Amino acid sequence: MPDLLKKKNLDILEKEFGTINKLSEQIISGDIRTLSRCITLSESSREDHQIFARAVLGKILPKTGNSLRIGISGPPGVGKSTFIETLGLYLLKKNKKIAVLAVDPSSAKSGGSILGDKTRMEKLSQSEKVFIRPSPAGTTLGGVGRHTREALLLCEAAGYDTIFVETVGVGQSESAVSNIIDIFYLLISPGGGDELQGIKRGIVELADLIIINKADGSLKKDAENIARDYSSAVKLLRPRFNNWVTKVLTCSALENTGIDKIWNSTEEFFQKFNKEREILNYRKDQYRKWLREEIIQNLNKQIYSSTKINGLIEFYENKVLVGDILPSDAAYEIVNNFLKK
Amino acid sequence: MPDLLKKKNLDILEKEFGTINKLSEQIISGDIRTLSRCITLSESSREDHQIFARAVLGKILPKTGNSLRIGISGPPGVGKSTFIETLGLYLLKKNKKIAVLAVDPSSAKSGGSILGDKTRMEKLSQSEKVFIRPSPAGTTLGGVGRHTREALLLCEAAGYDTIFVETVGVGQSESAVSNIIDIFYLLISPGGGDELQGIKRGIVELADLIIINKADGSLKKDAENIARDYSSAVKLLRPRFNNWVTKVLTCSALENTGIDKIWNSTEEFFQKFNKEREILNYRKDQYRKWLREEIIQNLNKQIYSSTKINGLIEFYENKVLVGDILPSDAAYEIVNNFLKK
Repeated sequence: MPDLLKKKNLDILEKEFGTINKLSEQIISGDIRTLSRCITLSESSREDHQIFARAVLGKILPKTGNSLRIGISGPPGVGKSTFIETLGLYLLKKNKKIAVLAVDPSSAKSGGSILGDKTRMEKLSQSEKVFIRPSPAGTTLGGVGRHTREALLLCEAAGYDTIFVETVGVGQSESAVSNIIDIFYLLISPGGGDELQGIKRGIVELADLIIINKADGSLKKDAENIARDYSSAVKLLRPRFNNWVTKVLTCSALENTGIDKIWNSTEEFFQKFNKEREILNYRKDQYRKWLREEIIQNLNKQIYSSTKINGLIEFYENKVLVGDILPSDAAYEIVNNFLKK
Repeated sequence: MPDLLKKKNLDILEKEFGTINKLSEQIISGDIRTLSRCITLSESSREDHQIFARAVLGKILPKTGNSLRIGISGPPGVGKSTFIETLGLYLLKKNKKIAVLAVDPSSAKSGGSILGDKTRMEKLSQSEKVFIRPSPAGTTLGGVGRHTREALLLCEAAGYDTIFVETVGVGQSESAVSNIIDIFYLLISPGGGDELQGIKRGIVELADLIIINKADGSLKKDAENIARDYSSAVKLLRPRFNNWVTKVLTCSALENTGIDKIWNSTEEFFQKFNKEREILNYRKDQYRKWLREEIIQNLNKQIYSSTKINGLIEFYENKVLVGDILPSDAAYEIVNNFLKK
């Protein structure tokens, strides 16, 4: 830290936002405003803000790791918000403190935020024991993972014991999120078309629980059929963990049915893994990956800020642009020069 | 190249696969088997194969750049295969040579391939002027971009003048693919639910043409309604290019209606951009990004194969795993030591 942030800058930041010690104490005491502010700092495009937030994170690190980390994904329109609201209200009755981090795949172009208004989970957001927050996916390498993970750790330190990481769409962010969470819910709705076609298999394999939502009204029969199809299908897939067979359940978030089954299965999952310490090993793997991502990002920053290399990158870029050389060969030359003693 | 592949290894590879000169000549002459083989080499997990394929690629580089590069995406079940088949048959009548590269988001876990059987486009694949090929997304950084881009360039050198890059799902691979193609089709089907909800906006913004497929039978009316909704919605979005307003069209790939309108708009798109040389500038931007990706990958390889750093990575990894230090701070120390003279 002291290396990363000059004393003078640190003083300015501490004057503006509070001291690192004070901020971490406030987060640990559960102060929501401080929690929000630190998440905002960690998402800032200003590097000094990020480093400052990370210094706070470093302080609260011993207080992290005590939540159930639950990933939720599913195609658009499947009813993720309603599901989280219904499950969240159920968990509030069990005296849980809940955080919902919604990974926002905001356009890489506009940089704008499209999710995240609390109106999506109106009842849930009214509780004082609930913290709802969009987490920008970001445009940079490792964006999804970094922001969301930092927010998750800060929430854990603030005492949230059940944390949902919601992703929308069916894409690569799921795989990034699976590096952060313990258990992964995949929501499916009946009537969405060719649910079982191979293309979704990559996502299906990430799922520890497959939940067919909207099992109500005229779709109830369909939901049961699809559940049966998925139950057969998951037998063909390798589960994420050796001793957990992916379960397929139906529910109606709208009519509040089937929620208890889902939570029972979730508890069963965590009991199993806490007992066998698999969760711990799994989280260790996640931290290893995280470290690798940070190394890449750091290296990348170094090469582009290197004065020694600057002209050379431009030189090769021009050669690439006129079709003189392949980018891979140009990269080889650039990196070799950068690393040359 | 000579730096990257030792003479001895090169000899062995040239003996096995043919000389680099011969292979590039055969590709340029349109030999499909050589084309296939070189794509396979470029996708190999063996690094010497990759480098060898890239040497061929370097040779044929001057023969690339002459195709219409068309990205096609859309949610599962929208009918992408049928659409490509119908449009492809239409283009065959216009004497086009067509390549279809299907980006296969195969499970990061199993590494298996789930798409790619030619049976998906049965009629189209029977033509000698059509080349259909799955392109593994890969598990590594830049996987989608690299494999698919190399396959695309090889196809261009082989004389394919219309190249479709198909992605499935609605996720980050679209954004990688948009770095490879010129025009982006987004396929939507009526009855898919909440089509206009914000979560798809990131993908919608990538689209130059939004195509409502399945405008037939009982869904025709729905298709027209959705087209109207999208037409209003795209007005709120920034188009990818300043002088191209995203068009919304309907078609039925099944009944072969609306295909001519789609192709006319596509030609209009390319005429516009060829005239204004915007395509050229756009492709240059894509090549700049490509170079940046290659630099990252190369650096990453260097740090992990560095003997100087090896023990240090392990040391800090252990500190990270017991919660002593944040991965970001550990990465800072590791990279600093790696770069220290």
